[in-house]
Amino acid sequence: MMRLAYSKPERDAVACFAELCEREGMQVRYDACGNLIARKEGRNPELPAVAFGSHLDTVSNGGRYDGAAGVAAAISVIHSFNLQGVQTDCPLEIICFACEESSRFGVSTIGSKAMSGELKKEGLERLKDNKGITLPEALDASGYTFASIEDSLRDGKELRAFFELHIEQGPYLENEKKQIGVVYAIAAPVRLAVTVRGRTAHSGATPIHMRKDALLGAAEIALELEAMAKRELLNGMVATVGVLSVNPGAINVVPGLVEMQVDIRCSTEQVKRQSMEEVRKLFERVGRERGLSMEWELLSDESPTLLHGDAIASIRSACESLGFSYAVMPSGAGHDAMNMTRLCPTGLLFIPSREGLSHHPDEYTSIDSLSEGAMVLGKVIRQWAQAKGPGTTE
Amino acid sequence: MMRLAYSKPERDAVACFAELCEREGMQVRYDACGNLIARKEGRNPELPAVAFGSHLDTVSNGGRYDGAAGVAAAISVIHSFNLQGVQTDCPLEIICFACEESSRFGVSTIGSKAMSGELKKEGLERLKDNKGITLPEALDASGYTFASIEDSLRDGKELRAFFELHIEQGPYLENEKKQIGVVYAIAAPVRLAVTVRGRTAHSGATPIHMRKDALLGAAEIALELEAMAKRELLNGMVATVGVLSVNPGAINVVPGLVEMQVDIRCSTEQVKRQSMEEVRKLFERVGRERGLSMEWELLSDESPTLLHGDAIASIRSACESLGFSYAVMPSGAGHDAMNMTRLCPTGLLFIPSREGLSHHPDEYTSIDSLSEGAMVLGKVIRQWAQAKGPGTTE
Repeated sequence: MMRLAYSKPERDAVACFAELCEREGMQVRYDACGNLIARKEGRNPELPAVAFGSHLDTVSNGGRYDGAAGVAAAISVIHSFNLQGVQTDCPLEIICFACEESSRFGVSTIGSKAMSGELKKEGLERLKDNKGITLPEALDASGYTFASIEDSLRDGKELRAFFELHIEQGPYLENEKKQIGVVYAIAAPVRLAVTVRGRTAHSGATPIHMRKDALLGAAEIALELEAMAKRELLNGMVATVGVLSVNPGAINVVPGLVEMQVDIRCSTEQVKRQSMEEVRKLFERVGRERGLSMEWELLSDESPTLLHGDAIASIRSACESLGFSYAVMPSGAGHDAMNMTRLCPTGLLFIPSREGLSHHPDEYTSIDSLSEGAMVLGKVIRQWAQAKGPGTTE
Repeated sequence: MMRLAYSKPERDAVACFAELCEREGMQVRYDACGNLIARKEGRNPELPAVAFGSHLDTVSNGGRYDGAAGVAAAISVIHSFNLQGVQTDCPLEIICFACEESSRFGVSTIGSKAMSGELKKEGLERLKDNKGITLPEALDASGYTFASIEDSLRDGKELRAFFELHIEQGPYLENEKKQIGVVYAIAAPVRLAVTVRGRTAHSGATPIHMRKDALLGAAEIALELEAMAKRELLNGMVATVGVLSVNPGAINVVPGLVEMQVDIRCSTEQVKRQSMEEVRKLFERVGRERGLSMEWELLSDESPTLLHGDAIASIRSACESLGFSYAVMPSGAGHDAMNMTRLCPTGLLFIPSREGLSHHPDEYTSIDSLSEGAMVLGKVIRQWAQAKGPGTTE
């Protein structure tokens, strides 16, 4: 799958989805940055809407389920409501967010950031894709104007809640044999660029104890980060060295310089802070012991997002009443739901990904899982869309 | 310094050196692959020659001492013999080898290999430099013919011994505060290309204990190789991961594939064999424990070369009689001397390199060290060039 944000294939897919929504009697509109909002009025037009959805853009050479699963589940909920003649008190909205993936412009969840007021517009106009097309140019080609993307901002009062169904993108549910993941927190990443400087030397002529090998320092850090994440397993900590380059990179030269990028995620702010302090000490110790100079730069430092307690409770009880097994779990990956928590009570549910594969053409979630997820989503929406559903202040 | 093998600057330097030799009354000739041989007859033309020298080619952007130090020491020995009116029994030869460095064509010590019969000609005709010039073309431009380079082969009977003075290229002598390194073995490298295959996964969504992170496997191997080399320190073992690339190499993706190149050197064949067996077990253990697939390919597997016992003894005794401190040590780097051991008794002596720097513009050896090295070399040559010097069968 290749539906990069604001590309023709993506916009075509969104337009096609808009047609499906219209066929279900929904009214569709696009906001200022290309989020599709399909609305079905409820019995009481005064009530805030219960919204749900996900995104249709993909990474470059991605899979068929990331994002699309949540959008498909959303329309299937409306379809089954229509078949069963379910009328809700609240209006219902399907939101198909624009530019969730960072693949094209390096910034993720642009649509939900714009909608929730989390968008920092500064600098965005200079973002380019790998063909040199800027974000404003891409928006323009899709019929939107960069200058007005902040008009996507909505008032929290318009929404009673937002729910997103998404594939897990990890192997946890499959390994634990659970049908549904009830997400309690989204562990936004802390990202670091780390530079390890040692001294290049002749690989044959330099005795092993007289070296300042930058790669060995980096190797020690990577393994220690793994050990730290294992200790904080129950706090949903993960740590990854995904980028590492060795200089000068010759078979007969002891590496003098390593540049690496580290991604660390925890599901609570407290564990994150503790862990970052441990990471700092780790860098200092490795630098000291190996005679290496260590520099690090914070590329991003987002805080973990907690999902709404009532939203979590209603997803759990929907699973229980349907007899589906579930795990309450953190999400290591970011999602549009993360931004929507700024606007309204927000819930996030996962369905299993085969072998945890994601952002890959072999990404797969069975039709049974999709259908189970949609059933849970439908039950939750129906509950929240009652005049006196959860989220209403007594 | 930039005198790549068979380039104009290198050939000019050799020609200039040839003039210096002629000024000292030596007869110069070039052999079929461009080795310069400058000869000064002794009292007895029937005796085999005592040869000494090194090379004048450099790596790309190299230093001023690697190779040149040995050639300069050689001419200074002849110059001081001439000044002092020293007449030897044996003829003396300075040899300035062609193409010692692998920088231009990827193959090292071509000149001394050709002279000693170690040259495997097959495939050499296809070697290209980074401008696409083949080795035969480069030879041609210097006035040599690839077809006849094997004519450089000499009969061992022509030579009583060969001695090479070289900068250490490592920090050992400087750290140990020794003036001269008496090399007992040259630890030719075993080189491996190692491929570690794991499974790419989402850096946020994949719990740390469910990963197959190829980079962590590679990191563990790099650190274990370091530990192994430290255990075998006294056997001159070194191990280096100088090349390592991570795939896909994205900050939010657990590395699925790492390709690395490993260089391992020991000064004895036995330790090398034991170590390679340990390395094999290490790869298997890391693969098994981390669920990674490990493949490795032997890029080269040269045997350590022992230098001649009589040559070692005479360098030591020269140091002692001159009152110079010395260390008996292995050489981790390869040298022309390595090939010359196939022809005749061969000795190799080192002088210190500041901070162990080598193959670098900042490479430095003091004039005092150069002069001390030349004094040792002169004493050794004078001893071996006696009619009944070492190496003569009684």
